[in-house]
Amino acid sequence: MIIDCHGHYTTAPRELEAYRQRQLANPDDATLAPPNIADDQIRESLEKAQLKFQRERGTDVTIFSPRASAMGHHQGNASTSLQWSRVCNDLIHRVCNLYPDNFVGVCQLPQSPGVPPANCIGELERCVKEFGFVGCNLNPDPSGGHWTDPPLTDRWWYPIYEKMVELEVPAMVHVSASCNANFHATGAHYINADTTAFMQFLTSDLFKDFPTLKFVIPHGGGAVPYHWGRYRGLAQDLKRPPLGELLLHNVFFDTCVYHLPGIELLLKVIPIENILFASEMVGAVKGIDPETGYNFDDTKRYIDAVPRLSEQDKRRIFEGNSKRVYSRLQGRIFGQSSSARSAD
Amino acid sequence: MIIDCHGHYTTAPRELEAYRQRQLANPDDATLAPPNIADDQIRESLEKAQLKFQRERGTDVTIFSPRASAMGHHQGNASTSLQWSRVCNDLIHRVCNLYPDNFVGVCQLPQSPGVPPANCIGELERCVKEFGFVGCNLNPDPSGGHWTDPPLTDRWWYPIYEKMVELEVPAMVHVSASCNANFHATGAHYINADTTAFMQFLTSDLFKDFPTLKFVIPHGGGAVPYHWGRYRGLAQDLKRPPLGELLLHNVFFDTCVYHLPGIELLLKVIPIENILFASEMVGAVKGIDPETGYNFDDTKRYIDAVPRLSEQDKRRIFEGNSKRVYSRLQGRIFGQSSSARSAD
Repeated sequence: MIIDCHGHYTTAPRELEAYRQRQLANPDDATLAPPNIADDQIRESLEKAQLKFQRERGTDVTIFSPRASAMGHHQGNASTSLQWSRVCNDLIHRVCNLYPDNFVGVCQLPQSPGVPPANCIGELERCVKEFGFVGCNLNPDPSGGHWTDPPLTDRWWYPIYEKMVELEVPAMVHVSASCNANFHATGAHYINADTTAFMQFLTSDLFKDFPTLKFVIPHGGGAVPYHWGRYRGLAQDLKRPPLGELLLHNVFFDTCVYHLPGIELLLKVIPIENILFASEMVGAVKGIDPETGYNFDDTKRYIDAVPRLSEQDKRRIFEGNSKRVYSRLQGRIFGQSSSARSAD
Repeated sequence: MIIDCHGHYTTAPRELEAYRQRQLANPDDATLAPPNIADDQIRESLEKAQLKFQRERGTDVTIFSPRASAMGHHQGNASTSLQWSRVCNDLIHRVCNLYPDNFVGVCQLPQSPGVPPANCIGELERCVKEFGFVGCNLNPDPSGGHWTDPPLTDRWWYPIYEKMVELEVPAMVHVSASCNANFHATGAHYINADTTAFMQFLTSDLFKDFPTLKFVIPHGGGAVPYHWGRYRGLAQDLKRPPLGELLLHNVFFDTCVYHLPGIELLLKVIPIENILFASEMVGAVKGIDPETGYNFDDTKRYIDAVPRLSEQDKRRIFEGNSKRVYSRLQGRIFGQSSSARSAD
């Protein structure tokens, strides 16, 4: 089985975006009705996109969350963010119920700049306990490119970590859109946030406080694998333990790197048990690479093309590591029928 | 000849830092005397560090600038920044006069957040025309991690670009220290700035306006080579020209990547003519890699170890590309005597 641990509902029916615009036009109106979206609209939005790509590329299950760039934690206020998160997560839940063999849910959190992350516990519990979601996306910069909240290693974040540990769910570290003109969202802000989070973890004792807390750093870990020597050296200069001991029990990288040389580097320097297959489709880069004739984000092809990767290692990247990190996946049965899915 | 295009005077005598502390304690005092540093102190600070490493590693000339993390553009005000830049650049000039075979100067600019970069023209001209410096370091975020000024592609920056073009000097895109707790300076802020600048260039027509403007993106180009497929794909999605046409006549990467797999990736995906040898010594990572037994920042070893790199390509990386980008190096004669150095 091939699990893609990083997919967003980027193709949701346009009613969702229209709802969001109405909401932001009246951020204090708590009576706004949720968008009216039919099951057939959901089916159509997926059949021609994510499901089509799953079939074409030979992947099975996508760990699926609301569109990251639309989380927009910097827009509106804390109650806007909660309403918007609930609407988005409800929709992911419907996707997972319609296609229980193809999608597993991960939730957006109702973060808001300057508001304690403890504020997100209710929605995380709802999504995990009521919907059977297996993780969350945690935004290290709810300000959208101004980085005004404390680092992820600050006690400010500890209440949400306590709940994550209790529920046994990991977080993918994932920013949303940038409202800072310096940072292109998918070309700079996303990658910078990945690099930033890793260095925060490197300089802290967070995982002494939470030995079972788990984070997935997406987009191949930002700049980290390319600069793995720099990070090993910085840890040493700073009298930190070696990276394996310091954080590789808790920090994992996905494979959203859109060319073969990048994937080769990732698989060469990062231990195989820390790498989770992902494509981020339909996501940041939509086109076909003229050098290969295939989609840039068809990352399975790159992994299949890496020389000397054993079948056992492939299975770990494609399935085993995701089941270990998203531990609520264990015991789930896919590929039989919709009734086979545990209601949790 | 081997030219290291990225070295900072990180080992300056302590009088320099003491001066800076006095200055910041009274930022409006324009009468502060410059630090009193003897030639022998300068010699001692270099003989046991940069010069020792040049000899040990077999490199010849370092393109040398003030300590980047100490530029501190976010501290004090515009006039503090000007005084501090003059003091730092004067010291680099003395280094270059004491060791004209070993060092060539690049200047710090007196940037200050919210102050137009046109403000830096005088100091750039002084350093190039009076001192014979061959380039400058340009800070894309003078706020020190808050990114409050416009992107590098905004017309805000055009006056300094006009002067760079007129003087035929490139800029290395280099931030200073971070005063944002989210960003570790050398582990996150530096690398993020590199990635950010590249994406700013990718989304703009800056090089149509300045066809001969040249930037070196240090630290191996941040995350860019590792995500080269992503950037090729983003350019295509955004209907931009291919990267080679769009920016590779103007944007160059150094080799400050501290492990062999990273250097191999860099040399595989970036055209050889866009890669400039550099080590950033004595800089971000000071220790010895236990996996190799050599300093992490001894980047010449990695390049020498890359299989199938022709002697011609090595010469371009080690010398030819730097002479092309830092075009004022052309015609300079090194390795004879101090009098051989052109006074420019």
